[in-house]
Amino acid sequence: MTNASISTEHLDRFAAIVGDKYALRGEADLAPHLIENRGLYHGSSPLLLKPGSVAEVSAIMKLATETGTAIVPQTGNTGLVGGQTPREGKSDIILSLERMNRIRDVDPVANVLVVDGGAILAEVQKAAEEHGRLFPLSLGSEGSCRIGGNLSTNAGGTAVLAYGNMRQLCLGLEVVLPTGEIWDGLRRLKKDNTGYDLRDLFIGAEGTLGIITGAVLKLFPQPLGHQVAFAGLNSVEDALALFNLASSLCGASLTGFELMPRFGVEITARNIDGVRDPLETAYPWYVLIDISTSDSAETAERMMNALLEQGFEAGLVLDAAIASSVAQQKALWHMRESMSEAQKPEGGSIKHDVSVPVSKIPHFMAEAEEAVMAAMPGARICAFGHMGDGNIHYNISQPLGADKDAFIARWHEMNHIVHGLVLAHNGSISAEHGIGQLKRDELATIRPAIEIELMRRIKRAFDPANIMNPGKVVRLDP
Amino acid sequence: MTNASISTEHLDRFAAIVGDKYALRGEADLAPHLIENRGLYHGSSPLLLKPGSVAEVSAIMKLATETGTAIVPQTGNTGLVGGQTPREGKSDIILSLERMNRIRDVDPVANVLVVDGGAILAEVQKAAEEHGRLFPLSLGSEGSCRIGGNLSTNAGGTAVLAYGNMRQLCLGLEVVLPTGEIWDGLRRLKKDNTGYDLRDLFIGAEGTLGIITGAVLKLFPQPLGHQVAFAGLNSVEDALALFNLASSLCGASLTGFELMPRFGVEITARNIDGVRDPLETAYPWYVLIDISTSDSAETAERMMNALLEQGFEAGLVLDAAIASSVAQQKALWHMRESMSEAQKPEGGSIKHDVSVPVSKIPHFMAEAEEAVMAAMPGARICAFGHMGDGNIHYNISQPLGADKDAFIARWHEMNHIVHGLVLAHNGSISAEHGIGQLKRDELATIRPAIEIELMRRIKRAFDPANIMNPGKVVRLDP
Repeated sequence: MTNASISTEHLDRFAAIVGDKYALRGEADLAPHLIENRGLYHGSSPLLLKPGSVAEVSAIMKLATETGTAIVPQTGNTGLVGGQTPREGKSDIILSLERMNRIRDVDPVANVLVVDGGAILAEVQKAAEEHGRLFPLSLGSEGSCRIGGNLSTNAGGTAVLAYGNMRQLCLGLEVVLPTGEIWDGLRRLKKDNTGYDLRDLFIGAEGTLGIITGAVLKLFPQPLGHQVAFAGLNSVEDALALFNLASSLCGASLTGFELMPRFGVEITARNIDGVRDPLETAYPWYVLIDISTSDSAETAERMMNALLEQGFEAGLVLDAAIASSVAQQKALWHMRESMSEAQKPEGGSIKHDVSVPVSKIPHFMAEAEEAVMAAMPGARICAFGHMGDGNIHYNISQPLGADKDAFIARWHEMNHIVHGLVLAHNGSISAEHGIGQLKRDELATIRPAIEIELMRRIKRAFDPANIMNPGKVVRLDP
Repeated sequence: MTNASISTEHLDRFAAIVGDKYALRGEADLAPHLIENRGLYHGSSPLLLKPGSVAEVSAIMKLATETGTAIVPQTGNTGLVGGQTPREGKSDIILSLERMNRIRDVDPVANVLVVDGGAILAEVQKAAEEHGRLFPLSLGSEGSCRIGGNLSTNAGGTAVLAYGNMRQLCLGLEVVLPTGEIWDGLRRLKKDNTGYDLRDLFIGAEGTLGIITGAVLKLFPQPLGHQVAFAGLNSVEDALALFNLASSLCGASLTGFELMPRFGVEITARNIDGVRDPLETAYPWYVLIDISTSDSAETAERMMNALLEQGFEAGLVLDAAIASSVAQQKALWHMRESMSEAQKPEGGSIKHDVSVPVSKIPHFMAEAEEAVMAAMPGARICAFGHMGDGNIHYNISQPLGADKDAFIARWHEMNHIVHGLVLAHNGSISAEHGIGQLKRDELATIRPAIEIELMRRIKRAFDPANIMNPGKVVRLDP
């Protein structure tokens, strides 16, 4: 199917569903929807639809089924694997949920919030806060990413340790199926064992099984105590030992445990406005520790002090700074969250979003460093991430003075090296970003054939015409 | 298909896979596997197989596919909806996992434990404890139920509030598919966004999509502080208010919040050895509060004292007893866990395992009492359960002096009344026990047609020959 293959008559019929104002065909209107953040993909599309209701989404999918037209759902367009980008050289129609951005209901007594699929994450956090509650999902892109995308990629972020990823934060869904039928699964129940788990099948399916138009999300009490500290360490081994100490000491109150290398702190201080290294001396590794407690502010304070004290005594913590104000807490998190951005002025960056069992992180980091440096002398490794989840963003900045294009051309080669080590530890090549276009073919080679076959059967069962975000996650036509 | 329809030659071929010692055909050997705990179902089967390895399970399923023979997986046979019972008048072969009961690996550093599907829950708890860790799933039947069944029913139990149900406690699975193929999904990762969520599809599928032969389970640090209290209250409204107070105060340290009516405490004290009412005066309602803390014993003590103090001050708690020893803690939990058993000497009991949003529990309880008493004057309602999860075991003991058979004959009538009220609150007719045979047809009437249709499509995609625990959860032939 090429661009030319959708007739103007068909496009007009799609446009009529949402009205001309919300059916855009101009190059300038479409342009930002055809590319993604990293510039890895540039898709093509004849039409961008912005439906205003579930009924309109349903009508679009009915017509898509009738006419065999591929539809790509898009929310904040912040995905990192090309899952939301239309295919190159095809005529996928883009369905944007940006107008469907309402908070439908907040019930602080039941601790639930009901939203449209197009609601912006930061707005959801705000709505929870206004009702004295916490919605804990937190990501670098929270100002623009939207709930439908967060659910479709089973987003993780910085508070997974205590609250889980998006799958654990969702009680119910409303989904428009490829046929246009609407599945109303907007349940608000903590326990409901009534048949196959459709909810978790749509979560993480990256829009290939249906379009998430609404969701029931879990809220939590706002913690009374919150402590953030930044500590300098000698090694990743020591970071693991400190993490185990923190887990035992804090249990579910340990809300964040992030690992950062010296190079990451250095470039963040250099390249990001307002960020400075909070410690006087340089250390090879750092951790950011976040503790939240429900009963009192004192409990968090006591926990953090005990953790750092025991960490010092055990020789794990070399120096540490505890944030003494909310502004300082935000500044520490800002440093961590800007680390990917800080790589940009340093030239090209080859990225990995991997996980291994937490206890294997030191081995993996040592092996990966050796292999990467052997393959690419001068590479500047910026491996940081959610240590407590076993999830490392293993980024590699180009050697000083290297040619950016030549460096980026080695993307797959470096992926192959890093992913090989990840797989040797039974790890994951996509801890939180998903598969999209970027990792679809690689996934098919590393997973047992029966696993890919089961995914294909699910895809066919839900989307027999293969019109729902085709070509993402799993390829139907081998 | 009837008993007679499997030829002796076929049965011999199945028997040869496991060896004659583990292929039982005698009436006495089969009898306990044909019935379930409540006596609601009595199935038939020509053969009980006890494979000793995943390879044998795989060979059985291959032969089942070749011969079109239905297989019913069975673990502890403690299920409450007939999911593990062979169909009546059919010739389902029972596949018991009882010999596959090993703890394969315990890794206290990574906080994971790997087990066979036939491992007994209590043994798993013990293995965790021996390594200084906690496996938090806890049920009345933990001495005999097995992990494969716990996963297949997404078991809940008494610690869901803090740790989630079985779905939240599992990282990876090994599953033998209806075709005999083995899916090795035994991953130990906290984060892994690589395609459709097969794991959560098998969890809760009640053995209709495959046989769970192995699992990776999450372990937790053993809490340092543990407090259990029992409080007398005036009403369910007050119990809800106290629960909200406890949630705010204790956050994730609130590990249990169980509601019990006076009638339940009365019959448990009367009928269960060693149980006594810990309070001097009778109250209409009771809650059992369980708090666990990771940092110190003092934190739990402080939290419990603060909660009861504020509860007294607010007029919610009328009297309370805090367990002062581990033995007393166990005694309080024993009372709660024996409540269903305590109904047996009181005659017949019509059971419901329902959930509603937590904030709706008082309304639901009031409406249900009114409707049940109107339909059956003299009924003795024993509605208790996991208030914090919105999950009530709405049991009804027969009126004093009533005829048990006549009472039990009204099972569906009473179900209809109670479930109608549950559905009016968008609740669930099976919060934690599952669907099995008991609720299969009812589920199909109360859920949107598209939901049942999606389940059928999944069933067909995984089990096209319909040999994997057929007739449970969802009916393929309408």
